[in-house]
Formats: sequence, structure tokens, C-alpha cells
Amino acid sequence: MTTAPSLFAFAAGNEGTWRIRSMAPVIGDMLAPAERLSMAPASSAQIGDGCGGWRLQGLISNIRYATSSELTSLRRVQEPLGRPAARCAALIPIRKSAAWWALAQDERRAIFEETSHHTAVGLAYLPAVSRQLFHCRDLGEPFDFLTWFEYAPEDASAFEALVAKLRQTAEWTYVEREIDIRLDR
Amino acid sequence: MTTAPSLFAFAAGNEGTWRIRSMAPVIGDMLAPAERLSMAPASSAQIGDGCGGWRLQGLISNIRYATSSELTSLRRVQEPLGRPAARCAALIPIRKSAAWWALAQDERRAIFEETSHHTAVGLAYLPAVSRQLFHCRDLGEPFDFLTWFEYAPEDASAFEALVAKLRQTAEWTYVEREIDIRLDR
Repeated sequence: MTTAPSLFAFAAGNEGTWRIRSMAPVIGDMLAPAERLSMAPASSAQIGDGCGGWRLQGLISNIRYATSSELTSLRRVQEPLGRPAARCAALIPIRKSAAWWALAQDERRAIFEETSHHTAVGLAYLPAVSRQLFHCRDLGEPFDFLTWFEYAPEDASAFEALVAKLRQTAEWTYVEREIDIRLDR
Repeated sequence: MTTAPSLFAFAAGNEGTWRIRSMAPVIGDMLAPAERLSMAPASSAQIGDGCGGWRLQGLISNIRYATSSELTSLRRVQEPLGRPAARCAALIPIRKSAAWWALAQDERRAIFEETSHHTAVGLAYLPAVSRQLFHCRDLGEPFDFLTWFEYAPEDASAFEALVAKLRQTAEWTYVEREIDIRLDR
């Protein structure tokens, strides 16, 4: 059972649990470079605005594409965030084009899964990579989604393979801004 | 082609284009009574917070259930808001249960359309009734949706039939708060 959507903030600056190892533009404008990043519920006092970097917000919302059987498969194998061994993370903010958002639900679903196999591809990398999707298009944020991944250093090459596969899909032709931020703790 | 989601505000108090004729709780808590209502883009200077009533916000976002063929049918017959003859309006804020939001996309779609025929029922009342859906669940608002309808006085009974039909559907068993506000101008 989901509860109300919960808002999270990603604040980059000179403090935070996560050290930013790299920031790379995949497509579109970059974000300002920063040293560290904190990630916490937006209501949390931990996150200040005065850290001199940038702040992105997104919320855990209801599932938009996955079917009941796909959710069952995902829930059977996925691991939560915060595993002690998962010392590597990636934050990948993405914005999709107006053409994507103008599509009907069945058209977006067909590109997302039947053509691009987004869930099926992701499933192959569970439970090594744990992840959480944060929605932000409806919040007036500069991105539509913030995707957050955590994995152990020994699973880094699996994570690279996952990201590379998704970027080759038909779904990704609708991505008009993407930044790849890698972190560790 | 859709553009970015656009935020609208509904402010009730003692001013506004629309006169509130009635406010009825369908299920759950009521809103405070008010005399008039204004509806405008949230960025608009027309809408003040100091009118002593309540203010709800919602945004026009991407389509969540309709298929391409359903959208084509809708777009062929629907009329825009603001028709001079459409002097009657209804604002129906709705909140659905946690059980609804925990369902997978295919489960929600099946209840919404294959079982409850939400789009098909609505289509039968076009073009007489024009409407716009505003999303607000992800904004932390007290409702998940604000639905706004406009129709001419001579179409009032058709509108009553539409609302009655939707309230009898399986989809509506997931509605845990609903208020029916009728207005004219």
C-alpha cells in the first residue's frame, strides 16, 4: 500500500553524505559542479538551501507504466536503498521532450516496455543495483525525473551495462536533457 | 503537442467570476462555504489569498489512461472551456484511496475504462459538457484531482446524468473524498 507522495530533495554543495566523483552531460545543459550531495526528505532539517550549489526535488509517486505482474517480479528481487555495501551511487536527472508527453498512455507504454523493455532490462540487474525513481515534471522542476541508483563497487560494471542498454532504446530518443552524476560514500 | 504542465488556482471567497450556487459533500469532509469563485492560472495576479475562503491548486498534466484512439475520439468532439452559452459550471474535487494508488497501471486502467467506461461515458455527453481535469495529488494538496465542467443551462439534466453514471461505477468505490460544487456566471 502506498501512502501519500513523499517529496525528497537532492542538495549539492560542499556538504552531504555523498561525495560527487563525476558529473557528465549526456544531452543538454549541465548543472553547476559541486563537491558533495545530500539526499533526504524535503521536510528534513538536514537540507539547507545555503550550500552554494543546486537543489533538485522529486517525489515518490504512483507507478505509471508497470503492470501487476511486472511489479510482482520487481518486488520479489529488488533491494532497498541504504545497503551498507552499496557505497556507489548515481543520480541521473532526465527530461523528456514535449513529443513524449503528448503521446497517449498506450503509446508511451508501448515505447517504454514493449519496444524498449525498460522494466525487463532493469530486472536483469536486480538485486545488485537498487534504485528509486523520483517524479518532478509536475513540480515545475527543470527535469521530469530524478533516478537514483545504489550499488557495491564490484557491481560497477554491471551498472555501466544497464545504463548503456537503456540509452540505446527507442525510449531514450525522447530524452532531451540528461546528466550523469556519480557518487560514493 | 503539450507544453509544460500549467498550474491553475481555484480561489473561493467573496469575489470571482463564478457565483457558487451550492456545495454538497458527496463523501468525506466538506470545504468551508463561500459566495464566489475565481479560476485562473496560478501565476495570475487576479487570484489573491486574502479572500477569506479556500484555495485549491491543480495542474493540466499529461494523459494518464486514455489510449490514442480514445484521445482521437475525444479531441474530435470536445469543446473548449469558456463558451459564452456555458453559464453553468461544476467543480468536483476528488481524492482516491491509498488502495487505488497502490494498484499497478494495468489494474487502474482496467477499472477506469474496461470496467467503469470512464472515457466512453464522458464521450456520450460531448460536446454539450466541456471539461478539464487538473491533477493535484503530487502537489501535496488535499485532493488528487479537481474536475471542472462547463455547460449551458439547457444541458443541466444531461450533466446530472453524467455525474450520476460515473458515481455508480467500480472506479468510484475508490473515491474517499468528493465535494460537488455548482456555479453559474
